[in-house]
Amino acid sequence: MLAIRKARPERGVEVAEVAQPNPEPDELLLRVRRAGICGSDRHLYAWDSWAELNFPTPFTLGHEIVGEVVSVGAGAQGFAAGEVVAVESHIYCGVCRTCRTGNAHVCENLRILGIDVDGGFAEHVAVPARVAWKVRPEIPIDRAVLFEPLGNAVHAAMRFDLSGQPIAVYGCGPMGLMSIAVAHSVGAYPIVASDISPYRRGLAETMGAHVALDAASKTFEADLLNALGTRPTVSLEMSGHPDAFKQALRLSANAGQVVLLGIPPTPVSIDLADDLLFKGLEVYGVTGRLIWDTWYRTEAFLIRHGDALDPMLTHTFPLADFENAMDMIQTGQCGKVLLEMDR
Amino acid sequence: MLAIRKARPERGVEVAEVAQPNPEPDELLLRVRRAGICGSDRHLYAWDSWAELNFPTPFTLGHEIVGEVVSVGAGAQGFAAGEVVAVESHIYCGVCRTCRTGNAHVCENLRILGIDVDGGFAEHVAVPARVAWKVRPEIPIDRAVLFEPLGNAVHAAMRFDLSGQPIAVYGCGPMGLMSIAVAHSVGAYPIVASDISPYRRGLAETMGAHVALDAASKTFEADLLNALGTRPTVSLEMSGHPDAFKQALRLSANAGQVVLLGIPPTPVSIDLADDLLFKGLEVYGVTGRLIWDTWYRTEAFLIRHGDALDPMLTHTFPLADFENAMDMIQTGQCGKVLLEMDR
Amino acid sequence: MLAIRKARPERGVEVAEVAQPNPEPDELLLRVRRAGICGSDRHLYAWDSWAELNFPTPFTLGHEIVGEVVSVGAGAQGFAAGEVVAVESHIYCGVCRTCRTGNAHVCENLRILGIDVDGGFAEHVAVPARVAWKVRPEIPIDRAVLFEPLGNAVHAAMRFDLSGQPIAVYGCGPMGLMSIAVAHSVGAYPIVASDISPYRRGLAETMGAHVALDAASKTFEADLLNALGTRPTVSLEMSGHPDAFKQALRLSANAGQVVLLGIPPTPVSIDLADDLLFKGLEVYGVTGRLIWDTWYRTEAFLIRHGDALDPMLTHTFPLADFENAMDMIQTGQCGKVLLEMDR
Amino acid sequence: MLAIRKARPERGVEVAEVAQPNPEPDELLLRVRRAGICGSDRHLYAWDSWAELNFPTPFTLGHEIVGEVVSVGAGAQGFAAGEVVAVESHIYCGVCRTCRTGNAHVCENLRILGIDVDGGFAEHVAVPARVAWKVRPEIPIDRAVLFEPLGNAVHAAMRFDLSGQPIAVYGCGPMGLMSIAVAHSVGAYPIVASDISPYRRGLAETMGAHVALDAASKTFEADLLNALGTRPTVSLEMSGHPDAFKQALRLSANAGQVVLLGIPPTPVSIDLADDLLFKGLEVYGVTGRLIWDTWYRTEAFLIRHGDALDPMLTHTFPLADFENAMDMIQTGQCGKVLLEMDR
Repeated sequence: MLAIRKARPERGVEVAEVAQPNPEPDELLLRVRRAGICGSDRHLYAWDSWAELNFPTPFTLGHEIVGEVVSVGAGAQGFAAGEVVAVESHIYCGVCRTCRTGNAHVCENLRILGIDVDGGFAEHVAVPARVAWKVRPEIPIDRAVLFEPLGNAVHAAMRFDLSGQPIAVYGCGPMGLMSIAVAHSVGAYPIVASDISPYRRGLAETMGAHVALDAASKTFEADLLNALGTRPTVSLEMSGHPDAFKQALRLSANAGQVVLLGIPPTPVSIDLADDLLFKGLEVYGVTGRLIWDTWYRTEAFLIRHGDALDPMLTHTFPLADFENAMDMIQTGQCGKVLLEMDR
Repeated sequence: MLAIRKARPERGVEVAEVAQPNPEPDELLLRVRRAGICGSDRHLYAWDSWAELNFPTPFTLGHEIVGEVVSVGAGAQGFAAGEVVAVESHIYCGVCRTCRTGNAHVCENLRILGIDVDGGFAEHVAVPARVAWKVRPEIPIDRAVLFEPLGNAVHAAMRFDLSGQPIAVYGCGPMGLMSIAVAHSVGAYPIVASDISPYRRGLAETMGAHVALDAASKTFEADLLNALGTRPTVSLEMSGHPDAFKQALRLSANAGQVVLLGIPPTPVSIDLADDLLFKGLEVYGVTGRLIWDTWYRTEAFLIRHGDALDPMLTHTFPLADFENAMDMIQTGQCGKVLLEMDR
Repeated sequence: MLAIRKARPERGVEVAEVAQPNPEPDELLLRVRRAGICGSDRHLYAWDSWAELNFPTPFTLGHEIVGEVVSVGAGAQGFAAGEVVAVESHIYCGVCRTCRTGNAHVCENLRILGIDVDGGFAEHVAVPARVAWKVRPEIPIDRAVLFEPLGNAVHAAMRFDLSGQPIAVYGCGPMGLMSIAVAHSVGAYPIVASDISPYRRGLAETMGAHVALDAASKTFEADLLNALGTRPTVSLEMSGHPDAFKQALRLSANAGQVVLLGIPPTPVSIDLADDLLFKGLEVYGVTGRLIWDTWYRTEAFLIRHGDALDPMLTHTFPLADFENAMDMIQTGQCGKVLLEMDR
Repeated sequence: MLAIRKARPERGVEVAEVAQPNPEPDELLLRVRRAGICGSDRHLYAWDSWAELNFPTPFTLGHEIVGEVVSVGAGAQGFAAGEVVAVESHIYCGVCRTCRTGNAHVCENLRILGIDVDGGFAEHVAVPARVAWKVRPEIPIDRAVLFEPLGNAVHAAMRFDLSGQPIAVYGCGPMGLMSIAVAHSVGAYPIVASDISPYRRGLAETMGAHVALDAASKTFEADLLNALGTRPTVSLEMSGHPDAFKQALRLSANAGQVVLLGIPPTPVSIDLADDLLFKGLEVYGVTGRLIWDTWYRTEAFLIRHGDALDPMLTHTFPLADFENAMDMIQTGQCGKVLLEMDR
């Protein structure tokens, strides 16, 4: 079968013919239907220092997937061939203290699909049944592929109570855009977003931001407070830019909450005294999705508000055109980029 | 000035000429612009056993009000003549342990406007400055009058996290209708409502219920579970009907939450073992509004979603026509009924 | 092997010779070392209307157990023969929505050990590996048997934040006594307990109640408020007496929390308006233990404060003397009554 | 009267004769009985860059005080001459959004006693009645002086649920020591503390740490995990040392909470990706005390566990000997250092 392989510890990937996976007894074999390309896939493609330090090669990429069950392992109950499933990419152990107290998303023995085990940028993939989620028929396949990354945004936007609260969203990449749509759906008001790209600011305003500001403007900080009419009580840092995190702290209302989902590529120097402690702030780091609480909420969002995401579904490529998809992403003139396996 | 007086401990009211109130140093004198009639005003009008037991006469009714500041007491800072204010009807002491730990809405020394002190079904009213809330100019006066009762619904619907959750709302009177609009605005899905009145079920579906069921139907309980597709994780009891509260417990998902806002007129016999304890439920009694957390959220709702309430603003009467307004309410063929003082 | 059997739907039990259980692949076979007799075992013994309505016979009783692993099923990983384990008596399915969102203790498909499946008042018992908890060697076997019921008390006393709060505990049976010890260990102050039995009031004061009052006294309600110096912000209803639950509501501080663990045998008539709604109370029904959050906290309590429970470990009987143990319990002049299988 | 004055923007203080304060109508005049010297007073004494940047001179120091009411302003109700009061040093405005939503401790217009307004290292001080707390007679004056700093520790240790949880406390100065005593009182287990000073480690073990480790040891990180037997689920950073905060993040259990109370003097470079985000941590900055929730809990602690603090009450000086008291603090061979005004 065809698969996108990180074959060696260097920049780039191979679009290769490989053997179909051989599932374990507790696994499902899936025929992949759609897959999304994540920001982390770009790091893996580029093989930057973060990737190099953390991950052994070779492996097949791809952790945002939806597929059809082809076969069910002898020890994997509750699924049937032909069912459509999305996949929780965090393969948790289920027995560590963290898993056993409601936090499997940061399992102490976590393995990530598409990094630690072969992923779903391929025609077939094997996944443990315990990380498979049945997709309800109301949700079309082109939206169901969003379960995993959208779940991240749902986790970020539902961690604190946004209802009727003024919030700031830093960064309007796909993750920021989805968090805006979710924040909008749970009653945040106003929602002020920011990005350096006019293209993405346009998407942000289409998807629910009351205004999207230029993060590179000299007057950005004043603009943000003016647009909100007050300091934000909750701030979502979705850009990964170190300055954005520091701004999120500094501009926050006292006793506010700052949610960190964007991944800063380097250490960040923070004035903890003035910008966190004396303001009485709370900072929360979002990894993955609460298993399965976030999934139920994500499902409800997809059924009721799924069309809110359509503006960001800008490009789809066949699996074999993966390099073209990566090129598209590098331009920044796109929303979420999808791979379509059955085309 | 004109005022609606509960003059004697018996059914009915007097539409009377009385002296204008004489504010204390910590009070504002308001010219009342609009006032809403609350379900509790019906109890006071009828002077049922609950009213008789709890309240001494005489007093002026009216606790849902918006008005214009006429004068500011010497000890009442932060207000100016001409400003428009809504009023928190729960006049809290501010010094009891309950007030001092964030729960002034159930102050141990609570006095209620329009019952314990003369209220705002009158041309003027005096209120302590500490319970006055400045209305932002974006909010028109016909919606600003809803701050107090809408705050109740916001309190009820925002107590637990409804985002992406299946919920049931029992009762589609004004309070139920507002809670449906609020639940809709914070991402509850699906929202299944119920009432015995077809008129009100129609309003409920207009205001955000995905379906409104006939609570008197033989198949009601099955219908509710079918419509939700699962048991509700949060249930809002807004009807005051004893059976509805018992249904709310019994139909709830295990580990769910039941919010009680409707006032049952008599004691209710409850199977605590099977319907609460073994299900691991949580029940919360809503009184008033969190001061001022709920008000900020209510303000945001009124600015962003205020038009969602228009379908229930069905009738307005001049103050002098109070009896006609009460007659209208008795028919049940109405949403919120307002009094207009400047007409 | 010897087992205590509910053989027929009628009062009493049989002390019978039965075949040793035949474990499933996902199960452990345990040699039972100690077992505790629970209040619910008394209902099953008596076969009152609650028992009759809910449970088919025959079955072996016993759900508070500690034992030694004899054999491990082929599909049951992570255990080895000879290990000492306590058992979570709530056999959850793991796949219903309730289980998958952190509430396996009230699983929609719950089966209870010693009722729905053969329990541990026997020389051997088979339990699914997923409900077994390894006992750390610091915890002696005579305390380890308390994991299950103590976990109930930990769940009740840790649901709300008792630190530095005035609390009331209604009922000083074993469950009330354990909750007093736990509340004491988490900084509740003062703790005022109540019971009708002088014997149990004595135990309560030994185990951490600052005072234990006579619940049958005419002046009980005033005594409770005097002893606390204020209304309780959290109340634990551990008696199952309908009046106690009503008192817990009525005497609570406004905006307080009432935890219900005692099982009222009949419906209770409650003035929801005055005693719950207008007070702004929260009521929580305790079933079982949060799996496994409660268990980790219970383990820490047993290691650090296990000796606090010694005063209530008043009687131990050999398994064959089950009838004598039941007689002892009927007298009420006892704390927790244990069965010792290896004597 | 005698007062400790920061007269000029330079190192040191003056022990000066000044006029007695002239209280405003909403203020109480207090005769100060005891005062505690806080870490921040050392910064003010030294007049380091933090102090220089933030505060204008001159002013009287002292914000940890207990005193006796001498006179009550005309607008200050609820107090009487002769009453003993402790003082909340955070003089909040009461009308900003932060104050009005339960977070007066980080009021947007906060003024701090002993910095922004003349403090209590003096024979008399004037304070707004709204920040005065009546001391119950069960609490001796030598412990009542601890209300303010102990409240900080109570806020830190009660923010997250420590009951039955393994925790780490970084830093055993007075604030760390008090947080250890509080954590102990609310059932944390085990509590592993650390400091570079053997003297302070000794105090920590006396006051409730199960072990206190040498933070300067090469094997410190491994020692901490060994002593806990697991990663800490909650970590209290009380030292202000930048490395300690980074260790607190890195050593924390995934999905754990890190409470920051120690004030880092310079910006800290943090690997947000690996040490916060991917671990799913929550960080909370402690400023002051929740007003008045923390005070009620602190009062209960002082009544029930006040003697737990005695080991750290190592030195007391007359007001006039302030310089000697500062010298003592510089040695590090002390716990809390108090000033006694009536000696």
